Amino acid sequence: MQRFLTDYGIATSLTLGAVGLAGAIYLIRMVNSCSAGNDRMAEIAGAIQAGAKAYLHRQVITVSVIALMLFVAIGYLRDWYTAMGFVLGAVCSLAAGYIGMMIAVRANVRTAQAASVNPHAALRVAFNGGAVTGLLVVALGLLSVGIFYRVVLEYSGSGKIAINSLVGLALGSSLISVFARLGGGIYTKAADVGADLVGKIEQNLQEDDPRNPATIADNVGDNVGDCAGMAADVFETYAVSLIGAVLVAFLTAADQAKAALVYPFVICGVSIIGALLGIAFVNIVRVSPTVALIGGVAVSGLTSALLLHPVTHAMFPQAIEFSGKLVGSPALYTCVLVGIGMTFAAVFITNYYTSTAHRPVRRIAESCNTGHATNIIAGISTGHHATVMPVLCIAASIWLCYSQAGLYGIAIAVTSMLSLSGIIISLDAFGPITDNAGGIAVMSGLDPSVRKVTDELDAVGNTMKAVTKGYAIASAGLAAMVLFGSYVEELKAHLHQNFVFDLMDPRVMIGLFIGGLLPFSFTAYAMDAVGSAAGAVVREVRRQIEAFPGILTGKDTPDYRQCVDIVTKAALRQMILPALLPLIFVVGVAIIPEHGPYFLGGLLVGTIVTGLFLGIAMTSSGGAWDNAKKFIEDGNHGGKGSPAHAASVTGDTVGDPYKDTAGPAVNPMIKVVNILAILLIPILFR
Amino acid sequence: MQRFLTDYGIATSLTLGAVGLAGAIYLIRMVNSCSAGNDRMAEIAGAIQAGAKAYLHRQVITVSVIALMLFVAIGYLRDWYTAMGFVLGAVCSLAAGYIGMMIAVRANVRTAQAASVNPHAALRVAFNGGAVTGLLVVALGLLSVGIFYRVVLEYSGSGKIAINSLVGLALGSSLISVFARLGGGIYTKAADVGADLVGKIEQNLQEDDPRNPATIADNVGDNVGDCAGMAADVFETYAVSLIGAVLVAFLTAADQAKAALVYPFVICGVSIIGALLGIAFVNIVRVSPTVALIGGVAVSGLTSALLLHPVTHAMFPQAIEFSGKLVGSPALYTCVLVGIGMTFAAVFITNYYTSTAHRPVRRIAESCNTGHATNIIAGISTGHHATVMPVLCIAASIWLCYSQAGLYGIAIAVTSMLSLSGIIISLDAFGPITDNAGGIAVMSGLDPSVRKVTDELDAVGNTMKAVTKGYAIASAGLAAMVLFGSYVEELKAHLHQNFVFDLMDPRVMIGLFIGGLLPFSFTAYAMDAVGSAAGAVVREVRRQIEAFPGILTGKDTPDYRQCVDIVTKAALRQMILPALLPLIFVVGVAIIPEHGPYFLGGLLVGTIVTGLFLGIAMTSSGGAWDNAKKFIEDGNHGGKGSPAHAASVTGDTVGDPYKDTAGPAVNPMIKVVNILAILLIPILFR
Repeated sequence: MQRFLTDYGIATSLTLGAVGLAGAIYLIRMVNSCSAGNDRMAEIAGAIQAGAKAYLHRQVITVSVIALMLFVAIGYLRDWYTAMGFVLGAVCSLAAGYIGMMIAVRANVRTAQAASVNPHAALRVAFNGGAVTGLLVVALGLLSVGIFYRVVLEYSGSGKIAINSLVGLALGSSLISVFARLGGGIYTKAADVGADLVGKIEQNLQEDDPRNPATIADNVGDNVGDCAGMAADVFETYAVSLIGAVLVAFLTAADQAKAALVYPFVICGVSIIGALLGIAFVNIVRVSPTVALIGGVAVSGLTSALLLHPVTHAMFPQAIEFSGKLVGSPALYTCVLVGIGMTFAAVFITNYYTSTAHRPVRRIAESCNTGHATNIIAGISTGHHATVMPVLCIAASIWLCYSQAGLYGIAIAVTSMLSLSGIIISLDAFGPITDNAGGIAVMSGLDPSVRKVTDELDAVGNTMKAVTKGYAIASAGLAAMVLFGSYVEELKAHLHQNFVFDLMDPRVMIGLFIGGLLPFSFTAYAMDAVGSAAGAVVREVRRQIEAFPGILTGKDTPDYRQCVDIVTKAALRQMILPALLPLIFVVGVAIIPEHGPYFLGGLLVGTIVTGLFLGIAMTSSGGAWDNAKKFIEDGNHGGKGSPAHAASVTGDTVGDPYKDTAGPAVNPMIKVVNILAILLIPILFR
Repeated sequence: MQRFLTDYGIATSLTLGAVGLAGAIYLIRMVNSCSAGNDRMAEIAGAIQAGAKAYLHRQVITVSVIALMLFVAIGYLRDWYTAMGFVLGAVCSLAAGYIGMMIAVRANVRTAQAASVNPHAALRVAFNGGAVTGLLVVALGLLSVGIFYRVVLEYSGSGKIAINSLVGLALGSSLISVFARLGGGIYTKAADVGADLVGKIEQNLQEDDPRNPATIADNVGDNVGDCAGMAADVFETYAVSLIGAVLVAFLTAADQAKAALVYPFVICGVSIIGALLGIAFVNIVRVSPTVALIGGVAVSGLTSALLLHPVTHAMFPQAIEFSGKLVGSPALYTCVLVGIGMTFAAVFITNYYTSTAHRPVRRIAESCNTGHATNIIAGISTGHHATVMPVLCIAASIWLCYSQAGLYGIAIAVTSMLSLSGIIISLDAFGPITDNAGGIAVMSGLDPSVRKVTDELDAVGNTMKAVTKGYAIASAGLAAMVLFGSYVEELKAHLHQNFVFDLMDPRVMIGLFIGGLLPFSFTAYAMDAVGSAAGAVVREVRRQIEAFPGILTGKDTPDYRQCVDIVTKAALRQMILPALLPLIFVVGVAIIPEHGPYFLGGLLVGTIVTGLFLGIAMTSSGGAWDNAKKFIEDGNHGGKGSPAHAASVTGDTVGDPYKDTAGPAVNPMIKVVNILAILLIPILFR
């Protein structure tokens, strides 16, 4: 059994990856087979699809130019295997986003249609639309990493070359996902804020009113930001965690023990079974949406935990040596459980801070009674409070895993945590689909009861979205730590000398400070970008309403395309600078002669530390503000139209770039920084 | 000359300290000799004085209980010299705050009176009132540290005991200043926000309208927060920097070279001459307020720089060995210049981000056109942007000083930077005095032209306040780094073994994360405290207006005392938890058996890193929002009463706890953490 798993573990996992892919295709067909509703609905959905496609096409062109330059640079400066890995990672990351978005823009109208029949059918269509992205991300991640590794190993005949080329793949996927997260995040929030500022506040229109020229852009935004951006992001975290674990195994396992190298693939493969069962569970049971979705996660996690017990023991009958420490199967299985436990902890904690059922959101809602400012203060302080428990959990996980199995233990915990992303993303993508479904229902004049059904699902989706962000940033923090460990090990291996990053070394300290400022500067640019892009939308909407007053009476049709076009261009232009910021800083610090490796080491950790806090604080504040508004809209503190509601809208609007642009874009950013550092070692340090 | 300076350097410095004290007393007499205006003015000023005294008395009682417990604990667990140092530090920190505040509440009414004569006289009274605090802080700091050191040295006959007992003094002053900053900061902002929420927004009263029951509390707040809190804070930074430098000299200089130990005292002594000349400059020249004040800083800095050149060369004719590295007088003088240069850099950068003359504030003001939310986003992003340049300057300073003279070089730079605090605090304390003067002018019904004069001075004071905050947090960051270095050196000396805080050590990494969360949690509690205390004020003001409707017509006099009382109690109750947070975390981490020193080392650095960023970001955002409001009130974007103005008021209100409670309280907090760690070494690690 041990022989089989070690020799055929990767092949078996890849087969499971193919099964996952088949599952995704099956779900796509299932979603497509649902009724797409009447002509008006098809027309609106078509406009959203066209806008989303147009954006992604332009994004591909913009990003391709930068990627091509980097491909050539990596190929010349390092090697062409790594450069090819870079392209593969970039392509897969884009593909994950693209396909996820294409199914979302089909699922949305079908969810609206299903909602007019019965609520459970609507839940199923929306969830399955999201599950396509979930399965796709894990299957594509596993298959791309596994196949590329095997192919390079075959061609080059060198394990070292094969492993190194995976770093290229990691960089490609990370870099693209920074662009996707930023570009999509700027798009969605600029359109949202812009549409609200003129529509809701100046003209007193409802959400998704077809008379608002920016309303199609707003709905496109949900898809390119929350679907495509998020899919690219989690694809990246998944692929990078897997690669990080393989890299750590290669660098620290004695005699490069094959079982250690294969084990991360096996974890990912086994978890696909868990994801499929979880998805099936949600489709079969007939309970409340929240229970069904959380149940799906539980089924998925339990399945993985149960299956990995025998598999781990079979793969490691004897202890293996990692950096001089003997590690047996109980230790490794403990790390698996820590990773799965971390997932549940992240979900639970974020839910506490962002759900309307608990004190933090209620306190924010209450603070709306005394106005805009007290609401903002309460929301920011909630974000700060929300960092404490996740960081303590991360600290505990690091300690537990490290004492069990060293750096490899942490890598295994991250891989286990990420292996659940199949089901987790399904929950996340569910949100924007139902959001869009509601928009289509309103715009196509369906019965208000339909909107009520989608609104209920949307509220569930909102909490799920907040919760998955907590999961994403916690896993990103841990994954980045593994990458930092890989940087140090790679540095040692490459330069054949020991490296100590002592806090008393001023270079390390300076690196920490410079690294620490990266997330601050990055999020500042991201927020500015939303502000300036939203300003462009506001000006265009005002212009249209002024030029064609018939728009407001419903006599003239607004020029939706123009708004879509403006926000597309603005988002793509504004994403460049912040996305290149990490590259500039890392290269700038690394090329300092002689001291480069030390400054860089400090920088990597500094970025992880402040990035983790900013990421958690910003996504939590944003989620909490959003739900505080919802809580008031449910009739508390005066309900809709009250002064408290106006204050809560301000909080929600501040929260938009917080939770959907700047905060989540920190995840891929802290990994780009670390992967780039690994990639630069053989180029810059000799 | 070298013999003289080494043998009598401390005595000479103490004499200069006494001269500074004499200067402060002279200024007090000068301020007191000015006319205090008519009876109505005296009555109002009396109410403010009474409120401020009542608050400080209660604060002393509350803090004394905690200080007494710590005194006993330190005495029993460590030694009684250190415990006495702790008490001395606590008493001096309180005294600096108390005296500074007592002169401020006398200078305010005299400034109002002087403003009715001529603007320059008003500038002089207000500035001299502030200069008392400035001179007092540096003189008291130098004298307390110097005399206590000499006395313990005399009694114990051991240099080691004398140096160690200084750590107690540092902890006493730091801990008190956390309480003073928090308590005062909560007080001032709760009263301010509370008074505004009901007065300005609900009842449409102007600032300082005597019909507002919270208006006296608001004016008391300026004194207990911006005067007493700030004075305690800077006293602490000053004393701690001096102690840190002495400690580093003792721990790293070969044979504990006496010159190295005396040099920090000499820097402080010489700078008192600079401070006196700077204060004289502001009193003598007749130019615009901004030019006069900035000129005073320039005179002060140049004097110190010029005088320290010959002094440094005379003290170090030969190079001295620090941790095995030979350091000569040119290197040390370079560090002095770096410290003075850092002061100007901090002033310049903060001014750029918070003054109405530059792009960031103008951009925030512009964002008010699109509402509350865009204003908040622009302000937060400005705060994030504002971290970049100061941190890069700090990084450059660390590199330069370390390469010149190791850890001692950084300590010398910090001491030089802090030696300018005599003149810098004069600028800072100037703000609340003019603010109060304006309040008294309005409440006592002086001619509106008086308010106009004080308003102009207040605007200058606002920028100065923002600028000195940038200086305070930058110096706090550097001082904390020196303390961390002392922690490590002390650890090595105490346990007779080498300690390496490697980033690859999971304990260090976990420490970094836990340390990083401290400033986030601390600021969250501080913001919550303002919110809840302000809520209490709002309820009381509403109650009074409802019970006595005559208050609004001017028929009934509001019960000011009741508001003062409520906010006093609330501030004192709310400051306890956040102030104890650092103690709890440090002790909690340090007592982990075996691994304590490593976790703790990581924690110290983690706190410095995120604390520095949060401190800069929060104070900058707050200052920028405040001035964006002022910019709009000057007639831009529609001026007072426009929707843009309403949005800017929201930003200003959010900025209040940002810049006056949470942000500045981070400074003493990051030092408490580091000093406590040093103090715990002989108690916990054996």
